[in-house]
Amino acid sequence: QKTGSFKYRGAVNKLSVLPANVIEKGIVTASTGNHGMASALAARQLGISITIYVPENVSDAKLAGIELYGAKTHKVPGPSLAAELCAKETAQREGMTFISPYNDKDIICGQGTIGVELLEQLPNLDAIFIAVGGGGLISGVGSYIKSIAPHIDIVACWPENAPSMLRCMEAGEIRDVIEQDTLSDGTAGGVEPGSITFDICQKVIDHSVLVPEQEIHATVKEFAMHERQIIEGAAAVALAGANQLAPNYANKNIAVILCGRNIALEKFNAIVG
Amino acid sequence: QKTGSFKYRGAVNKLSVLPANVIEKGIVTASTGNHGMASALAARQLGISITIYVPENVSDAKLAGIELYGAKTHKVPGPSLAAELCAKETAQREGMTFISPYNDKDIICGQGTIGVELLEQLPNLDAIFIAVGGGGLISGVGSYIKSIAPHIDIVACWPENAPSMLRCMEAGEIRDVIEQDTLSDGTAGGVEPGSITFDICQKVIDHSVLVPEQEIHATVKEFAMHERQIIEGAAAVALAGANQLAPNYANKNIAVILCGRNIALEKFNAIVG
Repeated sequence: QKTGSFKYRGAVNKLSVLPANVIEKGIVTASTGNHGMASALAARQLGISITIYVPENVSDAKLAGIELYGAKTHKVPGPSLAAELCAKETAQREGMTFISPYNDKDIICGQGTIGVELLEQLPNLDAIFIAVGGGGLISGVGSYIKSIAPHIDIVACWPENAPSMLRCMEAGEIRDVIEQDTLSDGTAGGVEPGSITFDICQKVIDHSVLVPEQEIHATVKEFAMHERQIIEGAAAVALAGANQLAPNYANKNIAVILCGRNIALEKFNAIVG
Repeated sequence: QKTGSFKYRGAVNKLSVLPANVIEKGIVTASTGNHGMASALAARQLGISITIYVPENVSDAKLAGIELYGAKTHKVPGPSLAAELCAKETAQREGMTFISPYNDKDIICGQGTIGVELLEQLPNLDAIFIAVGGGGLISGVGSYIKSIAPHIDIVACWPENAPSMLRCMEAGEIRDVIEQDTLSDGTAGGVEPGSITFDICQKVIDHSVLVPEQEIHATVKEFAMHERQIIEGAAAVALAGANQLAPNYANKNIAVILCGRNIALEKFNAIVG
C-alpha cells in the first residue's frame, strides 16, 4: 500500500474527481498522519497543492512522512478532531475546499476498493475484521460487501480506550466521547458532527469487538515474531479482534484488514524488544 | 512471499515435478534456513515427507520456522556447506533424493519466476540488483532476463565478508573461499562442487558489487525507518549494492530484489533501536 496504509485509496480517488476551479482555490485536509501522508503523495502525483492540518501530538514519523511528499503542514493544539475543525473553518473562511479524512463519499469509495479486491481474491469469505476510527474504511468496504455478498459478516474492531463511533452508535447520535490514550493512534479521535459514516456504520456493521490495550501491544509483537512484518496499532486492533472472536468462526474463512504499518520505530522496538 | 523469502518458488517447483517412486524413497535437503522453511511448507502442501539438514549455527527463528511446518530436521556441525554435504551423502547411502538449495535446474527455474513477474510489471527495466549466495536466484532470474531482454543489466551483490561465488568466478573454478561472519546469513556459505550455478553466473552477471558489513546494517535500519518493513541481511546486500552503484544508473529504471525478511527479531532490534 502506497504510504503504508489504506488511506491512499481514498485520497487519490477524491483528488482525482475535483474540478480544476476547485483545485485552484486551494485544498486543505486534516489527519492524524496516514490520511495526511496519503493525501500529500496523491496531491503531488496529480500536481495539486495541498495544506494538511495535524494535531500537535502527531508522531514524528508520520509528520516526516507528510513533509517528505512536499505538502505544507499546520499543527493544531488538541485532539485530531480540533485539527479537523480548524482546517474546515479555515477552508470556509478562505473559499478553499476541505477534504475530510472519512466524511466524504469519494474518500469512502476509494477505501472500498479493498472490498473489491477481497472478494476477487477470496470469494468464499465469511467475515471481515476492520478497525474503526472515523469509519471511512469500514463504510467503504462494508457498503461494497453488503451490496454484493450481504451474508459476509462485517466485524468492527475498536480499542477499549477509544471506541468513539461505537459509543455514538449505542447512543443513536454522534456525540463527544472521552477517549484514553491508545497505541491505535490511527483510529483515535472523535467522530466529526454530521459525518455520513455514522449512518453507513449503523447499516453495514454486523458485530463489534473491543480490544484491551495490552492485547494491541501483544498482537504487534506476535505478528512481528511470526510474520516479520511491522504493523501499526490500528492494524493490530483488527487482528486482535479476530483472535478474540476466533471461536465464533471455527472452520470459517475470515479476512483481517491490516490497515497500516506506520508505527514509530521506537514504539515498535519497545514493544517487540 | 510464502515463508518470507523467494525460496518457496524453487522448492514448490522442484517438489511438484518429482515422480511418486522417488518421493516414496525419501527426500532430504539442506538449508541455512530459508530454503528449509520453504521446502517444509511446499512438502506439507504436496503431502511429501522431507528431512532438512541445517548447520548448527542456524538462527532460532529460522529453525522454528522449519519445524512449524512439520519437517524433520538434523543439525550438522560446521558451515552450511557441511550440512549440504552430509545430507547429500546420507541420501546417496540410503537411496533417498537430495534436493540442493540451488544446484538444481528445477529450483533455479522456480526462482526465475521473479524475473517473469519483474518484466510483466516493469517492462522498461535497465538493471536488476540481486544478492548472490549459492547463485540459485540470480541464475533463475538472470537466465530468463537474458533470454528475453538481454540489454537489462544483471548486477550481482555480495557482502565483502562472504563473496564465495565471486571469488570462484575470478579463479575460473569452484574452490573453497574463507568467509567472515556476515549479517547476510542467507547468502553465506561456500559453493557446492560441481554446482550448475557457477556456469550460469558466469554467463548472466554483467556487474558485481561488494558491500561492507556496516552498510548492510545501515540499510536494514534505513529501510525500516522509511518503509516500515523488515528485511533480512541478504535483501539489504542487494539494496546497499544498488545504493552504491546508483550514480551509474541516473535516470534509469532499476529493480532491487528484496529476497527475504527472515532476520532474527533480536538482531533487527539491535540494528534499528
